[in-house]
Amino acid sequence: MLGRLYENQNCSASRALELIGERWSLLILRDAMFAGFTRFSQFQKSLGVATNILSKRLEDFAEAGLMEHRPGAAGEQPEYTLTRKGLELMPVVIALTEWGDKWVRPGPISYRDRTGSEPVELQLRRGADGKPVDVADVAAVLR
Amino acid sequence: MLGRLYENQNCSASRALELIGERWSLLILRDAMFAGFTRFSQFQKSLGVATNILSKRLEDFAEAGLMEHRPGAAGEQPEYTLTRKGLELMPVVIALTEWGDKWVRPGPISYRDRTGSEPVELQLRRGADGKPVDVADVAAVLR
Repeated sequence: MLGRLYENQNCSASRALELIGERWSLLILRDAMFAGFTRFSQFQKSLGVATNILSKRLEDFAEAGLMEHRPGAAGEQPEYTLTRKGLELMPVVIALTEWGDKWVRPGPISYRDRTGSEPVELQLRRGADGKPVDVADVAAVLR
Repeated sequence: MLGRLYENQNCSASRALELIGERWSLLILRDAMFAGFTRFSQFQKSLGVATNILSKRLEDFAEAGLMEHRPGAAGEQPEYTLTRKGLELMPVVIALTEWGDKWVRPGPISYRDRTGSEPVELQLRRGADGKPVDVADVAAVLR
């Protein structure tokens, strides 16, 4: 079972964090998204995370529908592949990267469109007319 | 001191997570961003988080420059107000909310432009020409 750490928080951000807010979760997802890793040994080598934690994270991701768990063929490790639900967490990873690049120090990674190699970025915009919005001008309101 | 949990990860996302990846961190920042909370008692009442954890998070945010710590006047609690560096973590919170709304269940919050009350959303676009990009078409490359 996944945790209900933020049970009294009626908010979609907290519900998302219940699924991906544990240590290492977002870095495992990052490696699945961008390095194409699918096997336990790949994640373990990349992250150096304790094996019991990595096992738990991958099992939880499968249970939550973020990854699909496929048993390996004879002699091969099982595979964990991202579902669309898991892949759509990409903006969280990109938002963290863009912030780290700007406010901590520039990192080694840039995001590109696979087809044209053009730089890709997250933008905060009004849905209706596409006008860019600054973070200082965003309010949260009850629906 | 803040942790260097992901020390061997040369990546801006992991560096961002070292500052805001602990339990409750993003929900504290969410309340500072959108509820306008500045005082310990406001965060504590909203989140129900253990007081020692909340103290540590606020101190760490001040140390990391995400919040400014101002001593309170006589008889008043000190205030923790977001800096621009802290405010610019907003896309992380919005990305989590949008994902939770879509993939867990719709939550009570929507984001609006303060000036026009228009819905605001995160969009993944090519920087050069503004063309929308699907998450399946994004690759991470070394700069």
